[in-house]
Amino acid sequence: MSSVFGDKIKLSIFGESHGLGIGVVIDGLPAGLEIDLEEVKKEMRRRAPGRNKMSTPRKEKDEVIIQSGIFEGKTTGTPICGLILNTNQSSKDYSYLKNVMRPSHADYPGKIKYEGYNDYRGGGSFSGRLTAPLVFAGSLAKQYLKKYGIFVGAHISSVGKIKDDSFNTLNETKELFDEISNKEIPVINDRISEDMEKEISKARENKNSIGGKIECMIINVPAGIGEPFFDSVESRLSHMLFSIPAVKGVEFGLGFQISEIYGDEANDPMYIDNNGEVKTRTNNNGGILGGITNGMPVIFRVGIKPTPSIGRAQETVNIETKENTILEVNGRHDPCIVQRAVPVVESVAAVVILDLLLSSNLK
Amino acid sequence: MSSVFGDKIKLSIFGESHGLGIGVVIDGLPAGLEIDLEEVKKEMRRRAPGRNKMSTPRKEKDEVIIQSGIFEGKTTGTPICGLILNTNQSSKDYSYLKNVMRPSHADYPGKIKYEGYNDYRGGGSFSGRLTAPLVFAGSLAKQYLKKYGIFVGAHISSVGKIKDDSFNTLNETKELFDEISNKEIPVINDRISEDMEKEISKARENKNSIGGKIECMIINVPAGIGEPFFDSVESRLSHMLFSIPAVKGVEFGLGFQISEIYGDEANDPMYIDNNGEVKTRTNNNGGILGGITNGMPVIFRVGIKPTPSIGRAQETVNIETKENTILEVNGRHDPCIVQRAVPVVESVAAVVILDLLLSSNLK
Amino acid sequence: MSSVFGDKIKLSIFGESHGLGIGVVIDGLPAGLEIDLEEVKKEMRRRAPGRNKMSTPRKEKDEVIIQSGIFEGKTTGTPICGLILNTNQSSKDYSYLKNVMRPSHADYPGKIKYEGYNDYRGGGSFSGRLTAPLVFAGSLAKQYLKKYGIFVGAHISSVGKIKDDSFNTLNETKELFDEISNKEIPVINDRISEDMEKEISKARENKNSIGGKIECMIINVPAGIGEPFFDSVESRLSHMLFSIPAVKGVEFGLGFQISEIYGDEANDPMYIDNNGEVKTRTNNNGGILGGITNGMPVIFRVGIKPTPSIGRAQETVNIETKENTILEVNGRHDPCIVQRAVPVVESVAAVVILDLLLSSNLK
Amino acid sequence: MSSVFGDKIKLSIFGESHGLGIGVVIDGLPAGLEIDLEEVKKEMRRRAPGRNKMSTPRKEKDEVIIQSGIFEGKTTGTPICGLILNTNQSSKDYSYLKNVMRPSHADYPGKIKYEGYNDYRGGGSFSGRLTAPLVFAGSLAKQYLKKYGIFVGAHISSVGKIKDDSFNTLNETKELFDEISNKEIPVINDRISEDMEKEISKARENKNSIGGKIECMIINVPAGIGEPFFDSVESRLSHMLFSIPAVKGVEFGLGFQISEIYGDEANDPMYIDNNGEVKTRTNNNGGILGGITNGMPVIFRVGIKPTPSIGRAQETVNIETKENTILEVNGRHDPCIVQRAVPVVESVAAVVILDLLLSSNLK
Repeated sequence: MSSVFGDKIKLSIFGESHGLGIGVVIDGLPAGLEIDLEEVKKEMRRRAPGRNKMSTPRKEKDEVIIQSGIFEGKTTGTPICGLILNTNQSSKDYSYLKNVMRPSHADYPGKIKYEGYNDYRGGGSFSGRLTAPLVFAGSLAKQYLKKYGIFVGAHISSVGKIKDDSFNTLNETKELFDEISNKEIPVINDRISEDMEKEISKARENKNSIGGKIECMIINVPAGIGEPFFDSVESRLSHMLFSIPAVKGVEFGLGFQISEIYGDEANDPMYIDNNGEVKTRTNNNGGILGGITNGMPVIFRVGIKPTPSIGRAQETVNIETKENTILEVNGRHDPCIVQRAVPVVESVAAVVILDLLLSSNLK
Repeated sequence: MSSVFGDKIKLSIFGESHGLGIGVVIDGLPAGLEIDLEEVKKEMRRRAPGRNKMSTPRKEKDEVIIQSGIFEGKTTGTPICGLILNTNQSSKDYSYLKNVMRPSHADYPGKIKYEGYNDYRGGGSFSGRLTAPLVFAGSLAKQYLKKYGIFVGAHISSVGKIKDDSFNTLNETKELFDEISNKEIPVINDRISEDMEKEISKARENKNSIGGKIECMIINVPAGIGEPFFDSVESRLSHMLFSIPAVKGVEFGLGFQISEIYGDEANDPMYIDNNGEVKTRTNNNGGILGGITNGMPVIFRVGIKPTPSIGRAQETVNIETKENTILEVNGRHDPCIVQRAVPVVESVAAVVILDLLLSSNLK
Repeated sequence: MSSVFGDKIKLSIFGESHGLGIGVVIDGLPAGLEIDLEEVKKEMRRRAPGRNKMSTPRKEKDEVIIQSGIFEGKTTGTPICGLILNTNQSSKDYSYLKNVMRPSHADYPGKIKYEGYNDYRGGGSFSGRLTAPLVFAGSLAKQYLKKYGIFVGAHISSVGKIKDDSFNTLNETKELFDEISNKEIPVINDRISEDMEKEISKARENKNSIGGKIECMIINVPAGIGEPFFDSVESRLSHMLFSIPAVKGVEFGLGFQISEIYGDEANDPMYIDNNGEVKTRTNNNGGILGGITNGMPVIFRVGIKPTPSIGRAQETVNIETKENTILEVNGRHDPCIVQRAVPVVESVAAVVILDLLLSSNLK
Repeated sequence: MSSVFGDKIKLSIFGESHGLGIGVVIDGLPAGLEIDLEEVKKEMRRRAPGRNKMSTPRKEKDEVIIQSGIFEGKTTGTPICGLILNTNQSSKDYSYLKNVMRPSHADYPGKIKYEGYNDYRGGGSFSGRLTAPLVFAGSLAKQYLKKYGIFVGAHISSVGKIKDDSFNTLNETKELFDEISNKEIPVINDRISEDMEKEISKARENKNSIGGKIECMIINVPAGIGEPFFDSVESRLSHMLFSIPAVKGVEFGLGFQISEIYGDEANDPMYIDNNGEVKTRTNNNGGILGGITNGMPVIFRVGIKPTPSIGRAQETVNIETKENTILEVNGRHDPCIVQRAVPVVESVAAVVILDLLLSSNLK
C-alpha cells in the first residue's frame, strides 16, 4: 500500500476499517499556526456517517486524537499524528465475505495483491473510512490556506441525472462556500435538494445505490504555483483525487467539453483589470495553464460511481471454491456517498494546493 | 520544473523547444532487453510533425541519440539518456512574444513562475515538443511490456463533435492496435476519417484549431498491480496523463457516465471463465478496483483542448507595458494535435504500467 | 521535520518526548509474515531506559500498540502503525529550559528552525526517545530478513578509550549475535565489561557523560544489492545511521584506516571457495563495492558522542534575554547512551537492508 | 542504478565511461542566476585527469555542452542538462576484463546485479568518470551559494600517513579556499606537499596506489537548515558523499574522536558575540546539532581508499570459467585519486547544502 504522498507536506495514512484505529501522519506543516479544533471537528462531522437518512445508519464518532505535533494549541512544525479509534464495528457482518468477492469492490484485486492476508472485514484498508484521516489533514490545510486568503469550496453538482447549478468560474466567495457546507445536501440551488433526496431514497428503497458528481473551486490561488510537466497542478490534484475510493473521472475547467470546441471558443481572452491585475474573461482552463496556476480560480469536477455495496442479488465468484455464486450484501450501507465525499474532495484539494504553495517561491 | 517522475522507472526530462536539445534520462529499466531501434523510430515518427496537412508544416527529424545505457544492442540496467537535437527552429518567429502573452498558453504563468527568465521562444520548456522524449521512453517501455504479453493501444475517439467507435472494453487484440497505429488518422472506424480530416482542415482554413478525445486500452495487465489510495493505478496514470500539455480531463472505464447510473447497472458482475480465471461480464470500472488492476483490460479516455496557438485575432495583454492588446499568432501551428498526441498517451500509459508492474510482486 | 524515509519500505515517525505518544507508520512490508510479538518486546526492552545503573532511572514501558497492518497475527501488506504512549514524563523538569539553550543539544537550531513553536520539553521531537519507534520497525524488519537467512548483530566496540574485540569480518554467526544481545553490556569480550561499567560509573559520578563506538555486521546478504552512485548501500545506510541522534561518524570495512594504506594492502583478493562461490580473502571493503554488496558480510562502525545532558555547570546563552549564562542540567540522564544505541543501530541497518533487498531483483 | 537524488534540486546522472557521453540533468535551480562559465570550466579542470604526474596520463577534455536550462547566460528555472562527450577512450584496454574481476572494483557485484549486461569497459557506469557531471552540478550550486555568502572549501588532509594541517573549525575565509584550490596539491601547509608527491610517486613506481582523506568546510551557513531525523544535514551530506566512488568513511566535527571523550570536553560552550549572535567556543559538532545547522561552519572529513586499479599481480577469479586466476591491470591509472576527489567532495557538499537551503524557510 502506498500511503505516502506529497512534497513539502507528506501524508502517511494507515488503518483498516475493523482494526484498532485509523489515522494519518502529516509532515511538513509549518510551525506556529494556531489550530482551531472546533473547525476540525466541524469538518470531520461533514464526512461522518449516520447524520441523516441518506447515509449509512452506522454511527462513528470519528474523534481525532492528536498524538503529536501540536503544542500549546499551535503546530510545532514536526509531524502531526491524528488517530481515530474504531469503536462501532460489527465484524461478524463481514465474515461470510472472506472468499465471496463483492462485485466492483476491491475484494478480488486486494486478495491477489495481498495473497489473501489482507483484513477483509469492511473493506479493510480499502475502506472509504480511510478518507476520515484525509479530512483531518484537509481541515488543517484549510486553516493554513486561510492565512493566504485561499478558500476551497465544493458542492454536489449531480446525483444520478439530477443536476445542481454550477459555480461561476470567474469568481465565488468564501461566504457561498460556508453556506453550502452548512446545508444538509451541499448544493448551490436548494430547489433541487428535494429531487436529490428522492433519488437517493429511491435507490435505498430499491436496495440499490446511485452515483454523482462534485464540483470544487479554489479561490485566490496566486499565479505561478505548480510545475510544467510531471508536477502540473492537474497532475498533483488528479493524483490525490483518484486516490479517493469511487472516483472514476477528473476534469479541469471545461474539461471533456473543451475537446469538442474550436480554439477561439476555448481560449480565455486576457485583459488587465482595474487593479492592474492580469485576468481572463472566461475560465475554460480552470485556472491552470501549462500545469501552472494563472491567478484565476482553480476549478474541477470529479465523477463518483455508485457505492458498489448494494442489497440486490449479484452474480459473483467464490475465490476459494472457484465457483460462480450469487451474493446479496446485507449490512449498513450508504445508498449514495456523494454528499459525504464533498469534504473529502475539498480536503485533498486543500492539501495539494498547500503543498504546491509551500513548494513554490511565492510564500 | 518538476521533471522527475516514477518509482522503479524514473524519467527525467529536459529541454526547451529552441535550445540546443531536448531529451530524457530513463532510470530503472532492467538490464538485458534487446532494443529494437526500428520500433523506436517508428514510434517517434507517429508523433513527429510535418507528416501530413493536418499537422504543422515544421519538419523535425526527432532523431534520438542514445548517450548511455544501451551496450551491444541491449539495455545495461543503468540510465538511458536519449537526446534529440533541435535543428529546425526559426527563433525569430517568437521574438515579439517576449511580453505579449498568448491566451491559454503557459506564457503568463511561466513568466510569473520563472520571473521572466524562462526561454519564451516556442513555448520554451512548456512546448509540446517535450513530449518527443516521452514517446522515446514509451517506445522502450512498450518493448518491455511485450515480454509480459502486455500491449497498449489508443485511437482518436473524437475530433470536435465527430466520434469514432469505441474499443470493446472486454477484449481487443494487439493486431487491432497495430492496425490503428499504421493509419494516417488513427481511428477504429475508417468511415469517419474523412469527416475528421474535413473538420481539421476547416479549423486550419479558419486560422482556428479543434480539440478531441483519445481512448486508450492496455490488455493483459495481470490482476494485483497498483496500490490502494495514494498510488492507485488511476492516480499514477492520471498524474502522467495530465502532464501532457493540453489534457484537461481523464476518466477510467465508464468515467463520468458511471456517476449517472445505479449500482446494479454500474457493478461489473463476476464469473469464472472456462480457463478457471476470474472475469467480469462488463468492464465499467476500466480494469481497476480499489486502485488495483483486476485482470480486465485497463481502459481510459483523455480530453484534449484545441491548440491555443491560432491565427485569429485575440484579446490579450502586454505584461511589460501592462496594457491590453490584440494578438494574431503567426507561425507554423497544428490545427489539431489530437492525432499527434495518440502515441504520447500510449507512451505515458506504457511507462506507468511498466513502473507499477516492476514495483509489484508479480514480475 | 523530515520523517519519511525509504523506497519500498517507508518509515514515517512522529512524536515528541512529552506529547501524548510517539510512533511510526511502516509502509511496504510484504503481506503474510507471522509476527513474533515476544521478539518485538525483547528488542524494545534492549533499548528501553531504566534497566540498570548505566542508564537513566526514568522508567518507560515502551509498549507498542499496533493500530493497523497486522491481522490474525500476520502482516496484511498495508501500513503498520505502532504507537507508544508517553506515560512517565515529568514535564516540569524542563520548563526552565524554554529559553536557556543546552549546549550541544538541538535546542538552539530547533528554536531557529521552528521559530520558537517546537515542544522544548525533553528535547521534544529531537529526543532520543524517537529511536523507540525505529527499534519497533527494526524488530519487524529483522523477522523478514530471517526468512532470507540474513542476520544483523552489533556490539559496543568502545566506550571512551576502552575497546572491545572486533568482529571477524569474514564470518560470524547468528548465535554470537544472540549471545551478545542477551548481555547486560553487549560486548564480544566479557573481560572488558567491567572496565566499561567503571568508565560509565565514573562519568555518572562526575555529573559527566562518555561516548563510544558501535560495530555492526550483517551476514548472508546476497551479492548484487544496492545501486551505483546515489543509492549505494553505504549512502542508504549512512543516511539512516546519521539520523540517529548523537552519531557523528560512519565508516565501512576498514573505514578511515583504509585511507592510510596502499592498494595492494587494501584490495580484497578474490577466490572461488569449495562451494563454487566467489569470496574474498579479506573484507576491507565491508562487503560493499561500487555501492553494491559483493556477498561478503556488510560491516560498519558508528561513532557516538557523549550525551550532551550533563550535570556540570556549562557556559551557555539565554535566547530571550540575549545574555550569557551558566547552566547545570538536572534531571535523569544517561551517563552513556552507547549500550542503548546498539539495538537502534541494528534496527536501522535491518530496515535499510530489507528495503534494498525488496527493491532488488533478488527476492 | 539510482541516479536521482535531492529534494528541491534533483540530480539525474547518466553515462558509462566508454559510451557516447556522460552527463547530468539538474532540476530545481531557481531562475535568473547569471552563470559564470569560466568558473564552471575552472572547476571541471580541477577534477580532470592528465594534469600532472600524480594522475593518469589519460587526457579528457571534460567540456560540458549545456543542452538546456540556460538562456541568454542565465538559468531559466527549468532543468539544465550538461552533457560531456567521451572522446579519448581506448576500449580495447578493457576487453580482457569481461570475465576477469578486478579485485575491490565493482566488476563482480555489477556483473551479478546487471546479470552480465552492464558495459564493463572502464568500469562502465561505476567509473569515477561519472563524478565529472557532479562537479558540473557543484560548480553551479557554488555560484548560487555565493549569493548567500556561503562558500565551500576542501583540502587533502592526508595521503597515506602524511598529514596536512587542519582547518580552524571556528572560522576560515573564502580567500583561503581559493588559494588552496589553485595549488597543484590542494593542501593548507605547503611544506608537506613534497612529501605527499613523493608518496604518490612511490606508489606509482611500485605499480601500486595510495589512499587519503579530505577535509571540507562550508562557511556562513545560517542556523536552522536541515531536519531532525531522516533528513539531518549529516544524513543528506553522507548520502551523497558515500555515492562518490572509493569513499569509505564520513565524519562530522570531531567525528570518531568525539566518541572517546567526556561530555564536558565534547560539548561546545555557547556565548553571545559582540554582534549579538549566538556562537560556540569550540565546534566539535561540526556546525550541526540534532541534524540542523547551528550557524557555526559545517565541517566534515571523508576517507578515500587507494584506487583499486594497480599494476601488481592480484589474486582473483574468472567468473565465466569459475576458476581462480592472477590479474595484472595494465592501462592508465591514477596512483592516487585524492587530489582529483577534492572538487568532487566540495561539489556534492555544495549541492546538498543548496538543496537544504532551498527547502528551508530561510531563503
